[in-house]
Amino acid sequence: MSNEISIIMGSISDWKTMKEAALVLDQFQVAYDKRVISAHRMPTEMFAFSKEASSKGVKVIIAGAGGAAHLPGMVAANTILPVLGVPIQSHALNGLDSLLSIVQMPAGVPVATTAIGTAGAKNAALLAIQILALNNANLQSALNTFRQKQHDSSVESGEKLD
Amino acid sequence: MSNEISIIMGSISDWKTMKEAALVLDQFQVAYDKRVISAHRMPTEMFAFSKEASSKGVKVIIAGAGGAAHLPGMVAANTILPVLGVPIQSHALNGLDSLLSIVQMPAGVPVATTAIGTAGAKNAALLAIQILALNNANLQSALNTFRQKQHDSSVESGEKLD
Amino acid sequence: MSNEISIIMGSISDWKTMKEAALVLDQFQVAYDKRVISAHRMPTEMFAFSKEASSKGVKVIIAGAGGAAHLPGMVAANTILPVLGVPIQSHALNGLDSLLSIVQMPAGVPVATTAIGTAGAKNAALLAIQILALNNANLQSALNTFRQKQHDSSVESGEKLD
Amino acid sequence: MSNEISIIMGSISDWKTMKEAALVLDQFQVAYDKRVISAHRMPTEMFAFSKEASSKGVKVIIAGAGGAAHLPGMVAANTILPVLGVPIQSHALNGLDSLLSIVQMPAGVPVATTAIGTAGAKNAALLAIQILALNNANLQSALNTFRQKQHDSSVESGEKLD
Amino acid sequence: MSNEISIIMGSISDWKTMKEAALVLDQFQVAYDKRVISAHRMPTEMFAFSKEASSKGVKVIIAGAGGAAHLPGMVAANTILPVLGVPIQSHALNGLDSLLSIVQMPAGVPVATTAIGTAGAKNAALLAIQILALNNANLQSALNTFRQKQHDSSVESGEKLD
Amino acid sequence: MSNEISIIMGSISDWKTMKEAALVLDQFQVAYDKRVISAHRMPTEMFAFSKEASSKGVKVIIAGAGGAAHLPGMVAANTILPVLGVPIQSHALNGLDSLLSIVQMPAGVPVATTAIGTAGAKNAALLAIQILALNNANLQSALNTFRQKQHDSSVESGEKLD
Amino acid sequence: MSNEISIIMGSISDWKTMKEAALVLDQFQVAYDKRVISAHRMPTEMFAFSKEASSKGVKVIIAGAGGAAHLPGMVAANTILPVLGVPIQSHALNGLDSLLSIVQMPAGVPVATTAIGTAGAKNAALLAIQILALNNANLQSALNTFRQKQHDSSVESGEKLD
Amino acid sequence: MSNEISIIMGSISDWKTMKEAALVLDQFQVAYDKRVISAHRMPTEMFAFSKEASSKGVKVIIAGAGGAAHLPGMVAANTILPVLGVPIQSHALNGLDSLLSIVQMPAGVPVATTAIGTAGAKNAALLAIQILALNNANLQSALNTFRQKQHDSSVESGEKLD
Repeated sequence: MSNEISIIMGSISDWKTMKEAALVLDQFQVAYDKRVISAHRMPTEMFAFSKEASSKGVKVIIAGAGGAAHLPGMVAANTILPVLGVPIQSHALNGLDSLLSIVQMPAGVPVATTAIGTAGAKNAALLAIQILALNNANLQSALNTFRQKQHDSSVESGEKLD
Repeated sequence: MSNEISIIMGSISDWKTMKEAALVLDQFQVAYDKRVISAHRMPTEMFAFSKEASSKGVKVIIAGAGGAAHLPGMVAANTILPVLGVPIQSHALNGLDSLLSIVQMPAGVPVATTAIGTAGAKNAALLAIQILALNNANLQSALNTFRQKQHDSSVESGEKLD
Repeated sequence: MSNEISIIMGSISDWKTMKEAALVLDQFQVAYDKRVISAHRMPTEMFAFSKEASSKGVKVIIAGAGGAAHLPGMVAANTILPVLGVPIQSHALNGLDSLLSIVQMPAGVPVATTAIGTAGAKNAALLAIQILALNNANLQSALNTFRQKQHDSSVESGEKLD
Repeated sequence: MSNEISIIMGSISDWKTMKEAALVLDQFQVAYDKRVISAHRMPTEMFAFSKEASSKGVKVIIAGAGGAAHLPGMVAANTILPVLGVPIQSHALNGLDSLLSIVQMPAGVPVATTAIGTAGAKNAALLAIQILALNNANLQSALNTFRQKQHDSSVESGEKLD
Repeated sequence: MSNEISIIMGSISDWKTMKEAALVLDQFQVAYDKRVISAHRMPTEMFAFSKEASSKGVKVIIAGAGGAAHLPGMVAANTILPVLGVPIQSHALNGLDSLLSIVQMPAGVPVATTAIGTAGAKNAALLAIQILALNNANLQSALNTFRQKQHDSSVESGEKLD
Repeated sequence: MSNEISIIMGSISDWKTMKEAALVLDQFQVAYDKRVISAHRMPTEMFAFSKEASSKGVKVIIAGAGGAAHLPGMVAANTILPVLGVPIQSHALNGLDSLLSIVQMPAGVPVATTAIGTAGAKNAALLAIQILALNNANLQSALNTFRQKQHDSSVESGEKLD
Repeated sequence: MSNEISIIMGSISDWKTMKEAALVLDQFQVAYDKRVISAHRMPTEMFAFSKEASSKGVKVIIAGAGGAAHLPGMVAANTILPVLGVPIQSHALNGLDSLLSIVQMPAGVPVATTAIGTAGAKNAALLAIQILALNNANLQSALNTFRQKQHDSSVESGEKLD
Repeated sequence: MSNEISIIMGSISDWKTMKEAALVLDQFQVAYDKRVISAHRMPTEMFAFSKEASSKGVKVIIAGAGGAAHLPGMVAANTILPVLGVPIQSHALNGLDSLLSIVQMPAGVPVATTAIGTAGAKNAALLAIQILALNNANLQSALNTFRQKQHDSSVESGEKLD
């Protein structure tokens, strides 16, 4: 059995972005698996992972990839689980290529895309938690607390201006 | 009480895109509400809607907007329900402005973004169904059937090439 | 009562840009308030601020935000005061996302947008002063002096070329 | 004497966009002048206009231009009146060139920029009215009424969805 | 056994672009297969096709796809045959999304990318022929003749100017 | 009397780019003036300069500017001398704003635009020399020598590869 | 012997843009040659043309090309005559590809670039005339008359507004 | 006689990118020539090289160039050998100019384009090997081994995550 959330990424170099997703899940005490599954270098594993994820108990897949970022869309093609795509900031084009490769999916196979880079990784984790929370009152409560703290932290940051 | 899925849009002119989401939900026999809620022209209603959606039984919000598209992000700021943002294809910049206004949310308040235009509207509906299906075996089955038909239709379309 | 000019920003990290606006206002001896008001993390305060600004005596609002920059437009939706939007230079897309999120407002709710980054922050302050100066001869005089000095400084800088 | 608002444009072909600004001013019964003043083909008139506008009683200048759109910035260089720049949608680049040519002004000489095309023209007019309204209770009242009608119209448009 | 060249495309709607590749191959009397193989709707067939292509005698694969265009890269991930990717001109972003999704492949799995749209389709066919011609003197001769005719046609077109 | 070539720039900070033009002119022993003439901060001088340049003996004007780069186009509007525009690499948008502000001039008032940054500055100088050389055999000879040396230097650089 | 101005273009389809350059030259009674010289389909002719142009009496070359537009730069590589490059508006990318392919020349080999499309074609002709006018008082006079008429026409166009 | 693969580049500064192609060829023990051949500074050599390559035994040409990158397309215009174009990451525009200058070739003269920068250089080498492998079982075997190692390396990299 897998955990309810799987974080996958196209390359180990994506971990410095995707660990931000992991840290958010840690903070909410939501268990997750994390794996490097390259769509281009490990297509067989990618296929197997995406076809088996649902039956292993995964509920939400968070997939980060950069450049010609095919991982989120190809996983989405092989599962009916919600797939959240995180565009990694790429070297030459700053993640615009990653973003368009992930978000512009054709009708029929959706990928839920978040922002380029670490903000997107954090938000993919929050989105996964928001999805799980639909049937988990504890997570709803934790999300509300998180939002409240986030609010308070913003308020306090502004008080430093004076 | 509301239906589990709410389709909202910034302007009545967005309906020609967002009705594609509605048609997908119809096809899956998933009930939904549909409303024009302009972030800029109806901010009070937008606020009220987003704060009350959860308690009224909404599970997933699909929000379409174009140009400086603030609706999905502002709704997401006021609810812990998953918000799916659909970038409407805009006149001058073809939806690139809509896309960036929706997807580039700061860490802490996620919006799950789909493709620009009708493909994105359809996929937001499918994503909403995939989320509901996590706890609904009938929807899982319907999604699998949908995928199979979609597959078969692609296969058949190719047979016309000969 | 508030001062006639309010500088607001979506995040404390925007202050390193927005303080350039403050410095210009200091230079003109125009009093101002400055606050962090995140559209996404402090929507209630944002709403309250924008609805009450006029009655508290604010004349012009300068709002800086980055990425999916919703603050200027959402404040503008709740007030008939002139709102000047400053696109903060963002990490991945260099502020192009901020610019489009702020400037591409739909008809009916204007935001007066300035350049990306510190030049935009300075110019938003100058624009606010130019607006106040319409009914303030001292400010007109100060602006003319500022323009003259700016002119002289450019002339002098060129003399160093020889 | 001139009217308090001047609408200028770089070319007669810009009128089909800029007349939307005029229509808004008509609606608010705010008088205005309208002129073609090409920065590139009528530089002397452009210079004279911008230097004399203030003394003739103009309060706000609305300037539309497309492509390498220099008119708003060059007028702003010669007056301390608020200049509102409207990027005209250009042929090849859809107004992205117009937008960047207008909004990316250097520190010291601001142009308040609105959206590309007719939405920007309408909003420039509204912004001009919002500026005049700072010292005109009737205009404040008219703006509040306009906003209310706009709100009601959005609400009503949504009722057609059912 | 397959023909030496396979034209595949993500959707039947891509055929209006990809038939230009077919017409070039017809002109050179090079046999080819043509198939719709959607990476997202027919992933199993896509996998099978790309793994088996080499053993069936395919030498070069021409793959057209649009939007989040994953087909060329995913086929390339499963074969060591040269894969030529043709970015289909997409609706909202004119094929910029298709281009970046195809060309920005990570090191290790190359896709040879041609221009957006019909020029790219024709050139992919010519490139395939140029590859086959490395070991086929008849094709070399045919290519030289094609180039000569193309040259002559350009020359003649210019004579109409006078 | 002025020299035949004038290098002007919008800001002293542009000198680090524009001095590359000066160095090329030095190399060809072509005399030049160099001045900071800000279109926005020194419009009167800019006007005077551009109107008088021809009568003072200037033949070619090289104008560098960044961001909303109006200098080359506004000078061109006031002279029939050839104006060569150099887009300075800007901070946020890397000179794309400068390039579009300079190159997208309307029909009737041309600016000859070169590449963004130092390559463009060098090439503007070379272009100015090429124009002067049309009536100066010595400069023709110097250009041919320059091209030959440039050629030889490229050839030699390649020999280091082995 | 050739005329002093040569208009060349990469394809006969570019003529609908480049004829605008021809019409301007006609208007100034400046003789010109016009030829289709494709860099890619007629490289030998392109080479010969560019190497011989100077000795045949050509003074300025106007070169229009679209997409991966190599003609202006390659001609410039083989001559020390001023080469004016006109980016043709391309199908998928609206001429942004043409513009960047022409303007971003490396240091050492300049191309003087004008706007995308017909405005650029007209302006290239005007620029060529401005260059010839440096040693031709009649052309100077004609240019001044042209500018005056253009000015008057703009003024008159504005009078229609009332 | 030349080796079967030629690596050429527009400037010695491109070597830091293109050596990645060389390293891949070294790894596969495929011999290659490497040369600086600037399209703009060495057009005669470029012409000679491209016309003679085939008769000297070259099979595939890998051409790297940046900015207004004309080398790959101009070589392709003079040979029927497959030309693989590598867009060098440029200074101001990060290689977007290089990419569009290379990939947007007109119908009739193909360039097979890879990703911007070092990934593209490596992939051009792999593509060249894949082409040679069509008639070389040893190279096929080496490519399969390379793919397997690449796969294993990705798998192992992921194991470090735990």
